[in-house]
Amino acid sequence: MDTSARVFAQRGYHATGIAELCAANGLGKGALYHYIGSKEELLAAIHDRVMDEVMLSADRAVETERSPSAQLALLGDELLEIIYCYPDHSWVVLHEFHGLTGERAERFHVRRHEYEQKVEAILQAGIECGEFGDVDARLTALAWLGMHNYSYLWLKPGGSLSAHDVAKPFAEIFIRGITNRKT
Amino acid sequence: MDTSARVFAQRGYHATGIAELCAANGLGKGALYHYIGSKEELLAAIHDRVMDEVMLSADRAVETERSPSAQLALLGDELLEIIYCYPDHSWVVLHEFHGLTGERAERFHVRRHEYEQKVEAILQAGIECGEFGDVDARLTALAWLGMHNYSYLWLKPGGSLSAHDVAKPFAEIFIRGITNRKT
Repeated sequence: MDTSARVFAQRGYHATGIAELCAANGLGKGALYHYIGSKEELLAAIHDRVMDEVMLSADRAVETERSPSAQLALLGDELLEIIYCYPDHSWVVLHEFHGLTGERAERFHVRRHEYEQKVEAILQAGIECGEFGDVDARLTALAWLGMHNYSYLWLKPGGSLSAHDVAKPFAEIFIRGITNRKT
Repeated sequence: MDTSARVFAQRGYHATGIAELCAANGLGKGALYHYIGSKEELLAAIHDRVMDEVMLSADRAVETERSPSAQLALLGDELLEIIYCYPDHSWVVLHEFHGLTGERAERFHVRRHEYEQKVEAILQAGIECGEFGDVDARLTALAWLGMHNYSYLWLKPGGSLSAHDVAKPFAEIFIRGITNRKT
């Protein structure tokens, strides 16, 4: 799956043929279908690998019972760590999700929406307890997601920055930006 | 070009054949090559359409001689307006830039880098004049770009939000997040 994610990230999902996947994985066509299934099943498995981690990280952040801003900082740290650890998978998820069809597309959209809802719920909790100012939770969640997700373009293993090097200043900017100053 | 951008955005650049472009544009193969050139020339022209607007907006923002935070707010407003007005083009630029090769890829990377440098220069000016705190200009520029660019996934004409509806709270969050509180 890791090898195939790399091939999809480099060549694009649609541009990658079964023959290339066989060559990259060192498998014949029969073995590829046996172990991996169809090209779209492979794409779905790559999405699940990332989304499993992402959903678990959201559960962990909420379970900590820390303040909303501490939960948000933890969530950002974990999201950047996933993007950092799975650069090819993340590229594929953020670029090629339109390659999923039917139930597989539906499953991905539901999980992505659930994650967005969890980010929004943390923001809403912070607004309600007065920790955050009177921001729009939905728009603010989208701002937060963009700021973090977009790092897939430049946050790479072997680069000069770790996920944590980026997560810390990002959390500082974002949480300062929404913190209630009236209290 | 608009029609082709829509086809690329819906089907993906690699998955779109010349026959589909001919059908969508109501042109024969000869006419398509005459008016539009190769598929990659078309992809490059779509990139230029967006990047021309993006570069002009950056020049306008800097020319205003406003404060760095006002320049940054104006730049965000214009970037979201471009994404809003060119949803298909923006999708193609943010998803399919790897389809460009050779000099065309080089031209795009140079222009994208120039834009990033302009965002960074506004941040650096704000740091130097004490308007912004002691943030890392490069990382902060990447945070700003992600927050704004990622809106191509959900900011669409015909939706409930205008570009300006989004730009205003985004600027508020971001500028509050980096403003120097020591002065």
